[in-house]
Amino acid sequence: MKELTVDLGARSYPIYIGEGVLGQIGELFAKHAIGKGSPLLIVTDSHVAEHHLGAVEARLKEAGYATVSYTAAWGEKSKSLAVLEDIVGAALQAGLDRKSTVIALGGGVVGDLAGFVAASYMRGIRFVQIPTTILAHDSSVGGKVAVNHPLAKNIIGAFHQPEMVLYDTATLKTLPDREVRAGLSEMIKHGLIWDAGFTAWLEQNAQKLISLDQEALQYGLYEGCKVKAAVVSKDEKENDLRAILNLGHTIGHALEAVAGYGELLHGEAISIGMVGAAKLAMRLGYSGQIYTATKRILQTFGLPVRLPAHLETEAIMSAMMHDKKFMEGRMTFIIPTEIGKVEINKNVSAAWVREVVEELKQEA
Amino acid sequence: MKELTVDLGARSYPIYIGEGVLGQIGELFAKHAIGKGSPLLIVTDSHVAEHHLGAVEARLKEAGYATVSYTAAWGEKSKSLAVLEDIVGAALQAGLDRKSTVIALGGGVVGDLAGFVAASYMRGIRFVQIPTTILAHDSSVGGKVAVNHPLAKNIIGAFHQPEMVLYDTATLKTLPDREVRAGLSEMIKHGLIWDAGFTAWLEQNAQKLISLDQEALQYGLYEGCKVKAAVVSKDEKENDLRAILNLGHTIGHALEAVAGYGELLHGEAISIGMVGAAKLAMRLGYSGQIYTATKRILQTFGLPVRLPAHLETEAIMSAMMHDKKFMEGRMTFIIPTEIGKVEINKNVSAAWVREVVEELKQEA
Ligand SMILES: NC(=O)c1ccc[n+]([C@@H]2O[C@H](COP(=O)([O-])OP(=O)(O)OC[C@H]3O[C@@H](n4cnc5c(N)ncnc54)[C@H](O)[C@@H]3O)[C@@H](O)[C@H]2O)c1
Ligand SMILES: NC(=O)c1ccc[n+]([C@@H]2O[C@H](COP(=O)([O-])OP(=O)(O)OC[C@H]3O[C@@H](n4cnc5c(N)ncnc54)[C@H](O)[C@@H]3O)[C@@H](O)[C@H]2O)c1
Ligand SMILES: [Zn+2]
Ligand SMILES: [Zn+2]
Repeated sequence: MKELTVDLGARSYPIYIGEGVLGQIGELFAKHAIGKGSPLLIVTDSHVAEHHLGAVEARLKEAGYATVSYTAAWGEKSKSLAVLEDIVGAALQAGLDRKSTVIALGGGVVGDLAGFVAASYMRGIRFVQIPTTILAHDSSVGGKVAVNHPLAKNIIGAFHQPEMVLYDTATLKTLPDREVRAGLSEMIKHGLIWDAGFTAWLEQNAQKLISLDQEALQYGLYEGCKVKAAVVSKDEKENDLRAILNLGHTIGHALEAVAGYGELLHGEAISIGMVGAAKLAMRLGYSGQIYTATKRILQTFGLPVRLPAHLETEAIMSAMMHDKKFMEGRMTFIIPTEIGKVEINKNVSAAWVREVVEELKQEA
Repeated sequence: MKELTVDLGARSYPIYIGEGVLGQIGELFAKHAIGKGSPLLIVTDSHVAEHHLGAVEARLKEAGYATVSYTAAWGEKSKSLAVLEDIVGAALQAGLDRKSTVIALGGGVVGDLAGFVAASYMRGIRFVQIPTTILAHDSSVGGKVAVNHPLAKNIIGAFHQPEMVLYDTATLKTLPDREVRAGLSEMIKHGLIWDAGFTAWLEQNAQKLISLDQEALQYGLYEGCKVKAAVVSKDEKENDLRAILNLGHTIGHALEAVAGYGELLHGEAISIGMVGAAKLAMRLGYSGQIYTATKRILQTFGLPVRLPAHLETEAIMSAMMHDKKFMEGRMTFIIPTEIGKVEINKNVSAAWVREVVEELKQEA
C-alpha cells in the first residue's frame, strides 16, 4: 500500500493507494478516530453500487459501524440541488448527527455530490473519499466539492477537505474501458503541467495502464495525486497557481457544453483541449515539439485529438466567453512552455483561439 | 454611528450601527475594498423591498456600483434550496463572478438565505449584511448561514462570515410592532445569558425600545451584538460555549415546530422557552428570583410567557427529542444560574421538562 499526504496544515490528509485497501477500512477508520456512536452515510451511484456497495457495507458492519446508503442515478445529472436535498432527507431519517461521516463511494460525480453534502449538512461534517474511477485521482484531491446549476457546472459548492482518501485499485477492474482512458487523460495532464519524467513514464507504460496492470496503475495514481497535491498545497482556495490544473479545460469545457454532456467524456474533451493549448503555444513562439509530443502521447492512450467537425466553432467560442476567461478579445489560457511546464497566459488572442478550434477539426 | 468589531482573527469584521448609516454605504464599501468591476447582488424579501430596496439601489448606483436585485417572497419558506437555485440563476445571468459581493437586505430569513448563496456561489464570495429587523442583531453576527430542509430547519448551510454589517436603525421604523417585540426577545436573551447590567437597562428602557427611540435602540443593538460577538469569538464553529445562545431555544424550537411556523414568531416562542428554562433552574436548586425576574422583564416587553394550551405536551416533547438533545431520559438545556449567567446542563430530567411544559400552559 502506498501512502501520500496532501499537505494543507490543519486540514492535511492521507491518500492510501493499493489493491485491496478496502480490506483495511476498519483499521483505517479507527486510526482516524471515526467514531461508532453516530451512523455513517455512504453515497454512491447505480453503477458503482452494483459492483462495490455490498462489500464496503459488509466490511464496515464487520468493523462495528452502523451505515446507511444512498444510491443516486449514475451520471452528471445527479450532481444537483434536488439530489442533495434528497440525500439530506435520507441523512435526517437515519439520524446522522454532527459526529457522523459521509463516505463518497464512486467517481468524480459521487465525490463532488457527497462532498457538498458533507460540507453543508449541519454546516459541515466529516467526509471520506473512496474513489472508484481513474479520473477521481484528480477529483478526490483538493477539496473542491460542488453540484451543478441548470445554467452552469460546479457553480454551487465549497472547499471541504476529506479526512482521508481510500483508493482501492481493485475497484477499477469493473470500470468500462472508455472511462479508463478518459481518466488517464487527467493523469497525462498532471504529467504535462508538472513533471517531464512522469510524462515519459506514462508514454512508455500506456498499454500497462490501459489494461489496468496493478503495479503501473498504483504508481501512476500515486504520481498523479502527488502533482495535484503539490499544486493544491500551494494554493488551496484557487487564487492563482491552481489555475494550471486547467490545462486543456478552457476548450474542453466548451466542447462538453456544446456537444451536450454525454457525447464526449470529460477526459476526452480535455484531451482535445490539451492539443489546442499546445497549438496556441506554437503561435506564442514555443517549440512545435510540445505539440507533437502532446498529440503523440494522447494518441498512444487512444484518446481523441480531433475536434468533432459537427460542433460549431462559434458555439464553442461563445461557450468559452461564458466561461468568463474572455475579456475584450483576450483570453486566459494555460499554455505549455515545454513538456512538464506551463504558464498562465492572460493575453491569448481570441482570433488565434478561433483559428485553433478550426484547425483542431482537421487533426489526424 | 457606533462601531463594533466581531473578533475572529483573519475573519474579523465590523458592525456599523446608527440612524442613516446607509447614507455612507459608498464610503464604507470603498473602505472595505469592494470593487466596482463586478456586479453586486442584493437579496431581499417582498416586505423589505417595498420599503427599502429602492433607496439602497439608488445609493449604490450613486457610488458607482452596478447592482442586480433578487426579491424573495417574505417568510421562512424562502429559506429553501429551490429559492437558492433561483437566486444562483439570477446571479449567473447578471454575470456575478468571484469578485462579486452578495448583499443581504432584510431580516434573519434574508440574511441566512443570502449568506448561504454567498458561501456556496463559486465556492464562496463576499457578503455584506444590512439587517432590517431587530432580531437580525442576532442572526447577522456569527456567520451561521443556512436554508431549511422540509424535514428540518437550518440543516443545510455553512459558516460564512460577512465583510461587514451595516445596521441602519432608520430601516426599523417600518417593522411591524409584533416583529419589534419578537426581536427584542433575543436582545433580552443576550442580557440574561451574559450581562446583568444590560438586563437591568433593558427592563428600564422597555418602552423606549418598543417605540423605537433611536438612541435606546442603538445602545440596545450595540450591547446585544456585543454579547453575541463575545460568545462567537470564543467559539466560532459551535463546539461548546456557543450553545449558551440557545437559552429558551430547546422549548422554543419545539413550540415553533408544533404550532406550525407562523402562529408563534421565533422571538415569542423563545420568550416562553426562557420562562421554561427559569422554571427548570428552580427545580435544579437555583433561586426562584431568576424565574420571577425573567418573567417580569419579558412581560414588560409584551412578550408571551404562557404556552398556548392547545399545543399537545407529547407533541412538544417528541419535537424536542427530534432536536437530538435528548438521550435516555436526560436532556441538555441552557439553565440560568443567576441573571446574566447560564450553565450548559446535560443532565436535565425529561420528566421535569414534561412537568414544566404543562406548567407553562398555566402561566399568567
Ligand atoms: N472536484 C474536483 O476537483 C474535480 C476534478 C475533476 C473532475 N471533477 C468532476 O468529476 C466528475 C467526473 O468524474 P468521473 O469521470 O469519475 O465520472 P463519474 O463519477 O460519473 O464516473 C464515470 C462513470 O463510471 C461509472 N463508474 C464509476 N466507478 C465505476 C466502477 N468502479 N465500475 C464500474 N463503473 C463505474 C459511473 O457510474 C459513471 O457511469 C465531473 O462531474 C467533474 O466535474 C471534479
Ligand atoms: N444565522 C443565525 O445565527 C440566526 C440567528 C437567529 C435567527 N436566525 C434566523 O432568522 C430568521 C428570523 O429572522 P427575522 O425575525 O428577522 O425574520 P424575517 O427575516 O422573516 O423578518 C420578519 C418579517 O419582517 C419583515 N421585515 C423585515 N424587515 C422589515 C422592515 N424593515 N420593515 C418591514 N418589514 C420588515 C419580513 O419581510 C418578515 O415578514 C429565522 O429564519 C431564523 O432561523 C438565524
Ligand atoms: Zn478535469
Ligand atoms: Zn433565536
